[in-house]
Amino acid sequence: MTTLLEPSGTRIWDRCQELARHSEDAGALTRVFLSREQRAADDLTLGWMRAAGMSARLDPIGNVVGRYEGSTPGAPCLMLGSHLDTVRNAGKYDGMLGVVAAIECVHALHARGTRLPFAIEVVGFADEEGVRFGSTLLGSRAVAGTFDRKLLDSRDRDGMSMRDALTAFGLDPERTGDAARQRADVLAYAELHIEQGPVLEAEGLPVGVVTAINGANRFAIEIKGMAGHAGTVPMSLRRDALAAAAECVLAIEARCAREPELVGTVGRLEAAPGATNVIPGEVRFTIDLRAPSDEQRHRATADVKEAIESICARRHVKVDIRATHEGKTASCAPWLQEQIGHAIAAEGLPVRRLPSGAGHDGMALVDLADIGMLFVRCEAGISHNPLEAITPDDAGLSARIFLRFIEAFKPAA
Amino acid sequence: MTTLLEPSGTRIWDRCQELARHSEDAGALTRVFLSREQRAADDLTLGWMRAAGMSARLDPIGNVVGRYEGSTPGAPCLMLGSHLDTVRNAGKYDGMLGVVAAIECVHALHARGTRLPFAIEVVGFADEEGVRFGSTLLGSRAVAGTFDRKLLDSRDRDGMSMRDALTAFGLDPERTGDAARQRADVLAYAELHIEQGPVLEAEGLPVGVVTAINGANRFAIEIKGMAGHAGTVPMSLRRDALAAAAECVLAIEARCAREPELVGTVGRLEAAPGATNVIPGEVRFTIDLRAPSDEQRHRATADVKEAIESICARRHVKVDIRATHEGKTASCAPWLQEQIGHAIAAEGLPVRRLPSGAGHDGMALVDLADIGMLFVRCEAGISHNPLEAITPDDAGLSARIFLRFIEAFKPAA
Repeated sequence: MTTLLEPSGTRIWDRCQELARHSEDAGALTRVFLSREQRAADDLTLGWMRAAGMSARLDPIGNVVGRYEGSTPGAPCLMLGSHLDTVRNAGKYDGMLGVVAAIECVHALHARGTRLPFAIEVVGFADEEGVRFGSTLLGSRAVAGTFDRKLLDSRDRDGMSMRDALTAFGLDPERTGDAARQRADVLAYAELHIEQGPVLEAEGLPVGVVTAINGANRFAIEIKGMAGHAGTVPMSLRRDALAAAAECVLAIEARCAREPELVGTVGRLEAAPGATNVIPGEVRFTIDLRAPSDEQRHRATADVKEAIESICARRHVKVDIRATHEGKTASCAPWLQEQIGHAIAAEGLPVRRLPSGAGHDGMALVDLADIGMLFVRCEAGISHNPLEAITPDDAGLSARIFLRFIEAFKPAA
Repeated sequence: MTTLLEPSGTRIWDRCQELARHSEDAGALTRVFLSREQRAADDLTLGWMRAAGMSARLDPIGNVVGRYEGSTPGAPCLMLGSHLDTVRNAGKYDGMLGVVAAIECVHALHARGTRLPFAIEVVGFADEEGVRFGSTLLGSRAVAGTFDRKLLDSRDRDGMSMRDALTAFGLDPERTGDAARQRADVLAYAELHIEQGPVLEAEGLPVGVVTAINGANRFAIEIKGMAGHAGTVPMSLRRDALAAAAECVLAIEARCAREPELVGTVGRLEAAPGATNVIPGEVRFTIDLRAPSDEQRHRATADVKEAIESICARRHVKVDIRATHEGKTASCAPWLQEQIGHAIAAEGLPVRRLPSGAGHDGMALVDLADIGMLFVRCEAGISHNPLEAITPDDAGLSARIFLRFIEAFKPAA
């Protein structure tokens, strides 16, 4: 193992490729919670951690946890990390990059013989995506002490319970609570992650400081108008459910475009009966609305609902708006944003602050400690897709920035 | 058989119920070309024709044809009629009402002993809907001399060819050409039909004069934008195929609403990949555009295409517009519209002219003779549906108006 005094972009990039070999599919990357492939990825990660000078273990939920002591053994830690599980047919950087880059930072400290006034822990979370059991953030919730033990009875698509999966993995399902950490032991949680969006690339920036992991509201909308013959019903007598829905789609788009960091999406839309020569009588569609502040999200949600109701009333169609999900914003602590920003500026780069529209382990860890995130640009904003891509240069640069942040880290007063 | 000097709404209504008993489904009305059920309906109709004083026969394509001679035997005829076949799960009046009402008119003339200066022929067309072989207007095309003999090789869903079906029905597939009539023998074609739309009911009118059977254009549209994460792609960087399609839907609606008799419908719309948290990258939809004049339809079509192209260009999404169907307008002859209008006015009713958005046998017969149509209101504009409904009063009133038209009929100069 080469000993480098600075993080190596090439080694980070290579290790992401190595982790990607552990997949349940031959042609695609899929690695889910408590799988054989995860065990192999864990062993690889444990080895890298030890080579970087850390003590390393699996915790009771299956997270990989490495610890690099500070100048005083047993001191509270700065926790770093990301997740080692993937979605189906995933990219190679979502999650993995953050774990590998954090290890690389510790590796450099170890090579220099540097000890900091605090410990560093690197966690490779065992489940963030929630693919296997349909519940997300299992690893980070366990660490934050918010893991819901009722989930032990949930089953994967082959009918195996999480309880049995833990046992098969060599863990004790009765001890998941032991994964929880104490607030006093964790000074902060910081994560390096690909942006999974196009903003940094569009602005020609390699990195950005995350302001918040956006909260989200989801709705299922059903519009009932009146089906009719496409040839015989005059425009003025129609109650076209699809035309009403189209107006709603544009109202959502317009409302969200009014504020820079608000996003609203109609991802699914189905029109019935769905014949070329029949006016649609019924349309169902979904809304996904996200914002970096809960207040902004609540205002936008209220406006969107009002717009939909008013469109449907004017068009004499019935509408049903059903809330299907609500997730609160996980704000990144301003003091951590500032320290991450300093590290970026120290590399001579502008400090771009941006929210995260996607979810991350920080959403769970915010219950344990203040959180901060460093985003790394990815190609065309593509993620959850084999086309997900970063450059070794960006990997190295972002790890150097992350290391600057770690070295200069001062806990909140 | 009662002998009435005026058409009876009750008898017309009762006969529609009687015809509806001949169906291939027990619980629903379905009667297709050259079926056993059609044979039974034909026999019933032939009997009613003969009782009304007509000579009656099946022609070589299976149309029921009754002839009531005028004061000079062998004189050219005023041809009346409609179709006796149905869609699947049909209503009881679409088609049948026009055949039964025409017979009822002749019955009244016969009861009074009236002979007109021209003959009357009543035709119950064997196929207008095209359910069995996928090609519409088979009966009326045969009469107009435009039946395409290649269709004899087309097969129904059980694999039976039209040729074999004709033979099984007792007809000679080599003689379908003999169903064609000469232009000199047919003074005009007039049809009484339910509106299949809501206009007359909305205006409180029992009948209307049809100005044209609308021409139609159909298109298949495909929009390609860029799929993306619903949380991470800012509104300003999106190329949302569904938002683009929504704007197209509204542009079509707005363009068609600008002219009273123009209609445009997006009946099918599918968005892909179709996940709540993914910006749609691809949308396909259909357009059905109809107008009573070809010129109006061509103008609207050009405007709609231009609007779609301009929306998609502005939104930086690709669009493909593919024409899938074009059918020309079949105009109702002004002189026939006028004579039908006189008959309506003679009953003390306002003369409402309106186009037909749905297709009718006149679309084929316009190649043989000038055509005219009298529309009868139906409940809520519902058709091609077991809920299709008319009142016996409207049946009687419309038949009396139709008889006034017949009695006063003057061929074009």
